[in-house]
Amino acid sequence: MREGAEFDTIRALMARWGDLAVDIGDDAAVLASLAEGTRVVSVDACVEDVHFRRAWISAREVGVRAAVAALSDLAAMGARAESVLIAFVIPEAWREQLSDVADGMGAVIREAGARIVGGNLSHGAVFSITTTVIGRARRVVSRSGARDGDLVVVTGLLGGPGAAIRAWDAGESPTAWSRGRFVAPAPRWAEGEALAEAGATAMIDISDGLAGDARHVAAASGVRLELDVALVPAGPGIAAEAAMQSGEEYELLACLPADVYDALAARWQAVSPLPLTVVGVVHAGRDATASADATLPRGFDHFASGETVR
Amino acid sequence: MREGAEFDTIRALMARWGDLAVDIGDDAAVLASLAEGTRVVSVDACVEDVHFRRAWISAREVGVRAAVAALSDLAAMGARAESVLIAFVIPEAWREQLSDVADGMGAVIREAGARIVGGNLSHGAVFSITTTVIGRARRVVSRSGARDGDLVVVTGLLGGPGAAIRAWDAGESPTAWSRGRFVAPAPRWAEGEALAEAGATAMIDISDGLAGDARHVAAASGVRLELDVALVPAGPGIAAEAAMQSGEEYELLACLPADVYDALAARWQAVSPLPLTVVGVVHAGRDATASADATLPRGFDHFASGETVR
Repeated sequence: MREGAEFDTIRALMARWGDLAVDIGDDAAVLASLAEGTRVVSVDACVEDVHFRRAWISAREVGVRAAVAALSDLAAMGARAESVLIAFVIPEAWREQLSDVADGMGAVIREAGARIVGGNLSHGAVFSITTTVIGRARRVVSRSGARDGDLVVVTGLLGGPGAAIRAWDAGESPTAWSRGRFVAPAPRWAEGEALAEAGATAMIDISDGLAGDARHVAAASGVRLELDVALVPAGPGIAAEAAMQSGEEYELLACLPADVYDALAARWQAVSPLPLTVVGVVHAGRDATASADATLPRGFDHFASGETVR
Repeated sequence: MREGAEFDTIRALMARWGDLAVDIGDDAAVLASLAEGTRVVSVDACVEDVHFRRAWISAREVGVRAAVAALSDLAAMGARAESVLIAFVIPEAWREQLSDVADGMGAVIREAGARIVGGNLSHGAVFSITTTVIGRARRVVSRSGARDGDLVVVTGLLGGPGAAIRAWDAGESPTAWSRGRFVAPAPRWAEGEALAEAGATAMIDISDGLAGDARHVAAASGVRLELDVALVPAGPGIAAEAAMQSGEEYELLACLPADVYDALAARWQAVSPLPLTVVGVVHAGRDATASADATLPRGFDHFASGETVR
C-alpha cells in the first residue's frame, strides 16, 4: 500500500475524520507546549484474532475498542487525552471496512476531546491497529504508590467482557449488557481525573481482570492487596468470581486513604453515574489475595462468599 | 502472551536494555517538561514480509532498521529523539529471536541519546514492530515551506537499499556497500538539526525514494521541485536513475535559500562526514520533475544525463 493506494487511503481517512485530524502528513507531528500539568504517553495494540474476532463485532466496534483500550491507559494515570497517532496494518480484505473502523475510533477520540495528529499505514497479512495516545494530567497517579491501610476501590460493574467472550466461545449469544460492555466500553476520564485529584495513591485500568491488575499494583507498590470477593460489583447475572477474572473491562482500580475515600464518596455522584465500590484494603506484604475474610476497616458491609479465588 | 509469558518477555527485554529503558511498566509514561524547543512525535511500523524478509537480514538488523525508520522521521523535522515506545506483535517462531531484535533497536536508540519509556506486547500471526518516537527540536522544519528559488539538497549517497533489494529479488548477493545501507542505515540527526537551524524551508527523509519524496515536498509546499538527474549522488556502481527511485534511504532531502546553502556548505565538514549535494531547484508550480535540463542557478556543475525519469 505505497504510493497511490496509500495516499488514497489516507485521503479517505482524512475525509472520514474531518477536523478531528490535524496536521497529518508530515514526518512527525508537533505537540503544543503545556501551560500546566504533566504530559504522559502510552501505546496499545489491537490485533485481529488476538484481541477480537471479526465474527463477534462490527468493523466500527473494532475501532471503538481499539481507541478505548489505548485511551483507558491515560485515564488510569489521571490524564486526559490530547493527541492520538494511529498505525494500521491492513490486509486486502479489510480495505473496504477501514472507513467503519475509522468512524469508531473517531467517535471515541472526539468524545475524549483529543485530536489525531499522525499515524502510519502498512499493508500486511493480519489486521492490527497500534494506537499511541498522549495526554496531560494535573496530578499523575502511577501504580506504585499504594500504602498500608489504603482502601481499594473500583469503578462501575465488572464481568461483562468476560461473560461476552465466554458466550461467544460457547457458540451462544451474550446478554445485551455483557455484549455492550465488550463492544462499546468507555474510558473513565472523569473518574480517573477525580480519583487522581482527590489523592489516589495508585491506579490502574482493569485490562487483565480485577485479580490480575490488583497483583500488578501490589507488585509495583510493594504491598499486599486484600480483596473481598463478596464486595466485587458484578454485572447482572455474573458471579463475583467470574467478574474478578474478566479482562478488558477498562474500569479503574484505585487505592486511596480512607479519609480521601470518604470525602470523594460524599461528592461522587457529581463526578460519575457509575458506582465507586470499596472491594478491599492494602496491607504491608506482597501480592494480592481475594477471600471472604478480608480485614476491611471501619465496618464495611461484608458478606461471606466462602470462596478463595487464588 | 498474557500473564506469565508476557511478563517473562518484558523482564527479558528489560534485562537486555538495562538503563536504556526507564519507568516501563505503568499504564503510561511521563514525559519530562521542556525547558526549550518544541516537542514532536511520530510513529512507524515494520512488518515482516512487507518491510523486510527474514532471509535477507538478521534479527538484530531487523531491530536496527525498525528503530532507524522511526527515528529518521524526527531527524527530518530537525528534531532529536528523547523517548521511544515499542509495540511488538510476536509469533511463536520469533520468541527466541526477540533479544536480538531488542539489541538492534537498543543500539540505535542508545546512539540517538534517547530512552525507551514504554511499549506493548501482543502475540499474533505476523511479526511487527510499531515504534513511536518523541523528540525535541529547537527549530521545526515541516515539508511545506519550500519556496520558489530555493535549492534542493540531499545528504549522503543514494541507491544502496534499492540495489540491495534488487539483488536479493534476483537471487544474487548485494554489494557490501548496498547491503550495509539496507541493514544498517543511520538517522541523520546532526545533519537534520544543522539544516533546520541554518534555515531549511522544507525537509523530509527519503523513505519513498528521492523522486517520490520530492513530490511529497512539492505537494505540501505548493511548488515544483526540478531535480537534475546528473547531479544525484549515487552510490558506487549505481545508476542515477536507480538511485532516484531507491526507497528507505533515510537520507534527508531539504530545500533552502541559496545564501543559506552557501553559508552551510562552507562549514558542512564540521557537521557531517557525508556529502551535502545540490540536486535541483524549487520553482513556482506544482509536482516534481527530473530532467537533464534543470534550470539550476549560479552555474552548478551540470552534466547531461539525457533521461527524464518521470
